[in-house]
Amino acid sequence: MGKLNHFDEAGNAVMVDVTEKDITTRIAVATGEITMNQETYEVVKQGRAKKGDVLGVARVAGIMATKKTSELIPMCHPLMLTKASIDFELEEETSTIRAICTTKLAGRTGVEMEALTGVTTALLTIYDMCKAMDRSMCIQNVHLLEKLGGKSGHYQAKK
Amino acid sequence: MGKLNHFDEAGNAVMVDVTEKDITTRIAVATGEITMNQETYEVVKQGRAKKGDVLGVARVAGIMATKKTSELIPMCHPLMLTKASIDFELEEETSTIRAICTTKLAGRTGVEMEALTGVTTALLTIYDMCKAMDRSMCIQNVHLLEKLGGKSGHYQAKK
Amino acid sequence: MGKLNHFDEAGNAVMVDVTEKDITTRIAVATGEITMNQETYEVVKQGRAKKGDVLGVARVAGIMATKKTSELIPMCHPLMLTKASIDFELEEETSTIRAICTTKLAGRTGVEMEALTGVTTALLTIYDMCKAMDRSMCIQNVHLLEKLGGKSGHYQAKK
Amino acid sequence: MGKLNHFDEAGNAVMVDVTEKDITTRIAVATGEITMNQETYEVVKQGRAKKGDVLGVARVAGIMATKKTSELIPMCHPLMLTKASIDFELEEETSTIRAICTTKLAGRTGVEMEALTGVTTALLTIYDMCKAMDRSMCIQNVHLLEKLGGKSGHYQAKK
Amino acid sequence: MGKLNHFDEAGNAVMVDVTEKDITTRIAVATGEITMNQETYEVVKQGRAKKGDVLGVARVAGIMATKKTSELIPMCHPLMLTKASIDFELEEETSTIRAICTTKLAGRTGVEMEALTGVTTALLTIYDMCKAMDRSMCIQNVHLLEKLGGKSGHYQAKK
Amino acid sequence: MGKLNHFDEAGNAVMVDVTEKDITTRIAVATGEITMNQETYEVVKQGRAKKGDVLGVARVAGIMATKKTSELIPMCHPLMLTKASIDFELEEETSTIRAICTTKLAGRTGVEMEALTGVTTALLTIYDMCKAMDRSMCIQNVHLLEKLGGKSGHYQAKK
Repeated sequence: MGKLNHFDEAGNAVMVDVTEKDITTRIAVATGEITMNQETYEVVKQGRAKKGDVLGVARVAGIMATKKTSELIPMCHPLMLTKASIDFELEEETSTIRAICTTKLAGRTGVEMEALTGVTTALLTIYDMCKAMDRSMCIQNVHLLEKLGGKSGHYQAKK
Repeated sequence: MGKLNHFDEAGNAVMVDVTEKDITTRIAVATGEITMNQETYEVVKQGRAKKGDVLGVARVAGIMATKKTSELIPMCHPLMLTKASIDFELEEETSTIRAICTTKLAGRTGVEMEALTGVTTALLTIYDMCKAMDRSMCIQNVHLLEKLGGKSGHYQAKK
Repeated sequence: MGKLNHFDEAGNAVMVDVTEKDITTRIAVATGEITMNQETYEVVKQGRAKKGDVLGVARVAGIMATKKTSELIPMCHPLMLTKASIDFELEEETSTIRAICTTKLAGRTGVEMEALTGVTTALLTIYDMCKAMDRSMCIQNVHLLEKLGGKSGHYQAKK
Repeated sequence: MGKLNHFDEAGNAVMVDVTEKDITTRIAVATGEITMNQETYEVVKQGRAKKGDVLGVARVAGIMATKKTSELIPMCHPLMLTKASIDFELEEETSTIRAICTTKLAGRTGVEMEALTGVTTALLTIYDMCKAMDRSMCIQNVHLLEKLGGKSGHYQAKK
Repeated sequence: MGKLNHFDEAGNAVMVDVTEKDITTRIAVATGEITMNQETYEVVKQGRAKKGDVLGVARVAGIMATKKTSELIPMCHPLMLTKASIDFELEEETSTIRAICTTKLAGRTGVEMEALTGVTTALLTIYDMCKAMDRSMCIQNVHLLEKLGGKSGHYQAKK
Repeated sequence: MGKLNHFDEAGNAVMVDVTEKDITTRIAVATGEITMNQETYEVVKQGRAKKGDVLGVARVAGIMATKKTSELIPMCHPLMLTKASIDFELEEETSTIRAICTTKLAGRTGVEMEALTGVTTALLTIYDMCKAMDRSMCIQNVHLLEKLGGKSGHYQAKK
């Protein structure tokens, strides 16, 4: 049967030893969505161009959160990210906003938790800024899209 | 058309003034899920009873994250939570783990962002601890279940 | 001779006892400026309307920093801010950007350090985002404009 | 026209990719001043030698703040500083205290934001500890003095 | 048999509900010691008066740590301390430095964890600053001295 | 006479320059104990196997605290730990729980403060979770057990 990382032989949680792992360039891309009612979607979309830049604030929040990952996720190693970015895609038909977070570093262990933390924080920030209009918003499909570098090699999510 | 909170007349982001709002008891309950393959699900489930307590670590992470909400979400007010808890439900048929976070305080503004942040952090921690077994895990259906207290009154999510 | 707050009889630093102070509404407004060369100033100014929203990012940074004040300034009490906002004024003739931060709470001790920390962090963020164009930018005139509430009463800076 | 760092082609804020930059020794020196009335200045100056060591507390605050820079400035990369120090110069005639912060690391990107954050936090701490005596203190002339290492080479502020 | 706080009926960790508890003035005093060799002790003691103020730095660290307690101890409620101070006592015969931390607030739950966290952080800071001279230093006798306020009433440690 | 690290020639605190130190694998092991009454000890011990996992929560707290060391101890360098673990030993006769923390990294400066911070935070967390049963618990014998790597070589505590 499969084995969980982050536990030792005795079943105790541990920040696993990565000292001997190679320093390689590691990249992760994660994504996730928030669905909302049509009226709220329109307000966010318009804010993009003029007043009330929801996505601008959410982008800053997401990027700052990537740097807090090891404070939030107990067994994550502290890392020195060399890149973090957040992009948004808007899907009119379903009133959905998709966040995509890319993180990168030259280091001993991966950056997928950083990318996932960036995505969820950006989406939570959108929720926070729109919640007076719509409390039924829902965060969906948060997952890893792609991962490069390190021993586990290239991972790409199935469509 | 609807109005976004957290923006002033000029469209600039602002941590809105809640000084004059009443101090009332406020409660929020949020939920969300993580789906995984069956093998990983079984390992997490068994860890519940003996070795490798994934959900125990995720619970601690989620509770600690509720206290970090105003550091993560830019326009959230700092709050003094008087309660935070995380529960998990396991759904065998779909290999899904559901997190439910309850937050509470006597204060001037709500606690729903705290509950949502607790949920996403608990789910991300499960992802982190299982990712060596399954990289296709997906976080789903993160939303507010219920909210009590404050001017906006009682909110309950539709089934 | 005058007396420093934040020191006890023996001259040791202390986070002074404010337990017995009244809970009143307290407001502080602080300001400060950053001067830059004309070319940089024009790029920031244009970014306001379209690409590269320097001031939008600086506003988020300043608001988030007000919440970190008691982590940065050793003898500051932790506070629950009920409002924080940052405004910018642009002065064409001198290529200067002025930040104004307003903070508010109902509490036992003032919010002027929060307003000042918001101003300096917003200005440092502008510096960071423009430094590839101009390394000679200079932060000037950071001071308290106004303060209301609490025993010391209404303070207003002289022009 | 000049180009802002920290924005991508579309004008979105980004923590820029520094993965491919060389690891070199990088040093930054920043400075800034706080002016106060003469009575307050005398109290701070005397505290240097005996009771009420304002500058000792401000030094600790400034050094600790250099380590928090990437938490405060949204697009700053997390760095592993290998040195941080704060010095003070006292100018009798103008009742001015000058802070000088030096930061150093062997890394892929510079340390000037760290030095500037150290300076402003040290000066804000002086303000906090003296504000009961003088609320008209003013922070002035915060700027980079010198920068060594990295592609942009040696920068030295003009007198 | 006795019951642990911070666990619910099912044995899961929880930040317990204190919403209904009375707001009272709560005070805690904690203490602890660090023992070192005589040479190191002399250097620390002399630094008190002139160069190398170990205890001054440790005092600032301890006070700042009281404000971080709820970030460090998972089930601690966030609190708004209204006072924090650290005192030191030096014991020549045993080359021992004793730290005493007093914390205070008007709130719904106690401040003993804050006082204990202040003590241990002050002692660890002394260790850090002296470790080049003596690696066999030992932290001893960290415990609560006194606690006032709240339902559990007045607690005083036995001599 | 011996010399304190972390102070410059003038006696001012400084985060010392380690830029030129070699990058080597560094390991530290620290330990410490908490004593309690017999009833409390039994509850903690039983919780190990079933309900109320005090040590599980304390382990997570200790590991997370190792990553916060440079935020707590003013002159500590920020480090990228590559391993952190906490083990517990239970001593029936004396109702004592011993925590052992191991930290590791490949870097320019040691990891003993990280190991000591992990130990004290784990022990404080045990205190917090048991304090409703026993307020006279006492933290004892916190010290470095072993240290490997770096210029100062192999250190081992005497029995």
